[in-house]
Amino acid sequence: MELFRVVTLAEARRLLARYWPLPGRQEVILPLLAALGRELARPVAAKDDVPGFTRATMDGYAVRAADTFGARESQPVILRLVGEVPMGQPATVAVGPGEAVAVATGSMMPPGADAVVMVENTELLPEGRIAVFKPVAPGQDLVRQGADVRAGTTVLPVGHTLRPQDLGVLASLGVTRVTVYEPWRVGILATGNEIVPPEANPGPGQVRDINSYTLAGLVQECGGKVTLYGIAPDDLEDLTARVRKALAENHLVLLSGGSSVGTRDLTVQVLAGLGQPGILFHGVAIRPGKPTVAAVAGDKMILGLPGHPVSAMVVFSILIEPLLRYGSYDHLAGRRTVEAILSRTVTSTPGREDYIRVRLGAGPGGFLAVPVPGGSSMISSMVQADGLVTIPLEEEGLEAGTRVEVKLF
Amino acid sequence: MELFRVVTLAEARRLLARYWPLPGRQEVILPLLAALGRELARPVAAKDDVPGFTRATMDGYAVRAADTFGARESQPVILRLVGEVPMGQPATVAVGPGEAVAVATGSMMPPGADAVVMVENTELLPEGRIAVFKPVAPGQDLVRQGADVRAGTTVLPVGHTLRPQDLGVLASLGVTRVTVYEPWRVGILATGNEIVPPEANPGPGQVRDINSYTLAGLVQECGGKVTLYGIAPDDLEDLTARVRKALAENHLVLLSGGSSVGTRDLTVQVLAGLGQPGILFHGVAIRPGKPTVAAVAGDKMILGLPGHPVSAMVVFSILIEPLLRYGSYDHLAGRRTVEAILSRTVTSTPGREDYIRVRLGAGPGGFLAVPVPGGSSMISSMVQADGLVTIPLEEEGLEAGTRVEVKLF
Repeated sequence: MELFRVVTLAEARRLLARYWPLPGRQEVILPLLAALGRELARPVAAKDDVPGFTRATMDGYAVRAADTFGARESQPVILRLVGEVPMGQPATVAVGPGEAVAVATGSMMPPGADAVVMVENTELLPEGRIAVFKPVAPGQDLVRQGADVRAGTTVLPVGHTLRPQDLGVLASLGVTRVTVYEPWRVGILATGNEIVPPEANPGPGQVRDINSYTLAGLVQECGGKVTLYGIAPDDLEDLTARVRKALAENHLVLLSGGSSVGTRDLTVQVLAGLGQPGILFHGVAIRPGKPTVAAVAGDKMILGLPGHPVSAMVVFSILIEPLLRYGSYDHLAGRRTVEAILSRTVTSTPGREDYIRVRLGAGPGGFLAVPVPGGSSMISSMVQADGLVTIPLEEEGLEAGTRVEVKLF
Repeated sequence: MELFRVVTLAEARRLLARYWPLPGRQEVILPLLAALGRELARPVAAKDDVPGFTRATMDGYAVRAADTFGARESQPVILRLVGEVPMGQPATVAVGPGEAVAVATGSMMPPGADAVVMVENTELLPEGRIAVFKPVAPGQDLVRQGADVRAGTTVLPVGHTLRPQDLGVLASLGVTRVTVYEPWRVGILATGNEIVPPEANPGPGQVRDINSYTLAGLVQECGGKVTLYGIAPDDLEDLTARVRKALAENHLVLLSGGSSVGTRDLTVQVLAGLGQPGILFHGVAIRPGKPTVAAVAGDKMILGLPGHPVSAMVVFSILIEPLLRYGSYDHLAGRRTVEAILSRTVTSTPGREDYIRVRLGAGPGGFLAVPVPGGSSMISSMVQADGLVTIPLEEEGLEAGTRVEVKLF
């Protein structure tokens, strides 16, 4: 029993990751808001284009861009105003040469038009005419049908954990129910003759159970479903029976070990007897947290954590949280904020803070923060992005190669 | 209506923070595990010392430290073994001069003893004697009664949001029910003639509601309780009625504005008519997110967010999330990981990763990371700590003044 197989943290993670995700989770169908934080069990493909029609992204006039070429402050182009597109209604009036149709942000673009002139760059004249003081390029200030999401593409893959922006893209596609996995079920069992429940008055030599509550809180924060199995005395038969019951009812079982060598030995003995493949490691080269033991028995995983409450929390946060929350140890979001090198120059206007959506990639010296294209009307840009980079109030932009901090979603 | 009062982000935060926390939350009593993430409405004071008795923190022998002075490998001190303390039971045998009593990690210390000799530094001899090969100092490898939490001290203040370690310290004190505030109730109302619910098939010029779902997800992630109030058309009377209903039933209401100027003007008109103190600002110097409007009416707060989904999410994350999640804009945990200067040198053993608990303080050039004293048996050290600093596998420690990254709880 004292033949420790002490491994490094990296080795411990490699051994556990080999069995994760554990098989056997059930699929459930949930309405959108209830599915937040859950993992998709089926991919979601777009049935429709988003947006479903080409839309204006500014208040102004839909025009033929070619008509505005050469317009300037001193020499405006004069167009005939032939109608307007009311919000939420079809565009019925077409834009012919020399014509314009009034649109609002979000309006359907009328046939014939290929750009929007901002209202700020125009003046309404008598007799149904407008003056345009600045030229626009084709495609300016509009978003084309399908530019956000193209019908037929897979929007979210299996295993993806649903974030708020994912709920948004699903709503935009008319998906109101999704198939997700049930939460990880985690059983927690305290061990040790000296441990009494919190509601008890400890006698001399006894202490109240702390670890069941800190661990339950940590599991809940990761979205797991906790069941407490009470406190097992230092007795092989009793402990084995409780562990078997907890394993039968959960995917993962956490034993918060009694602190003494006697209890630890007992834990190892129980774990060794649960079946194949058996104990993965017995001791990790970290402090606090060294006396951590892990085993896999059939489809189930079980970890014996140190008895000291700080040690148990540290081991949870480095070995268990990444699996429960992100499914692996190398998921980017596990790091919350990361430093990265900006892949290209982005500009900003001094006097306001800019928030740039970025996707993280691998660069020569670490992460590369790649700005995600697409205007702020595009929910798909938030789905593709891993986080936000801030351009401070007084900066005119950030140059390619700048070291930036990415706040991860 | 077009008299924008555009403010900087800092000014917008200052204006909102003046009214936060909003009054009027009810208090509820919850069992420990259900209270995770909730804010304490009453302070919690310790009724007992934790631990309730002086405990060994190593497996070995309780001794009088003075008896071991001068012990070395070549010249051990020989002590008489006069008994043992079984786990979870009172220590009945006292340690006299020249005597030792066997203890396990967590055992009650026997009267007369003032230190523990680790079992690794001893040898069991025939005839009830042990050899001690290394001296111990008084107080070594034990934790004194009340060293973790002293009876009578306030352990957690009003307004504190309960984290897993806080559940642990409450359990250790025998507190199994706590008085917390109800979650923030947040009403969400979409506006705009062009918006249809996700389950509808949008006609020409219509789009499905995205913002109600992204915002609901964000509020839920912050622990808030969401109610959706559907989609209001661009009609002053209808919108006003829906906003008043949402305000009556919630603490905070989020309008996800239609994107057109017409809808935005309408939103401002509605907000201006709700009562005193009225509109706080109308436009923030950020991108995306400029057309954001905020008002306070009586005890309630209402924000009109931009219609573009990306803009609405960015504004939520910088203006609303800090209030809902942390109660203010300057709570440290809002930054998740922070850089700090280590206040004193900490040592480590190469070949293992060390996790140091630190409290954050203000230093001359930013944050100071101050290591929290206390062994890993002390749950209070996790309650006092703001986060963890890692000492990498091959380092022998980190010197005072080192720039470190603190992973916040």
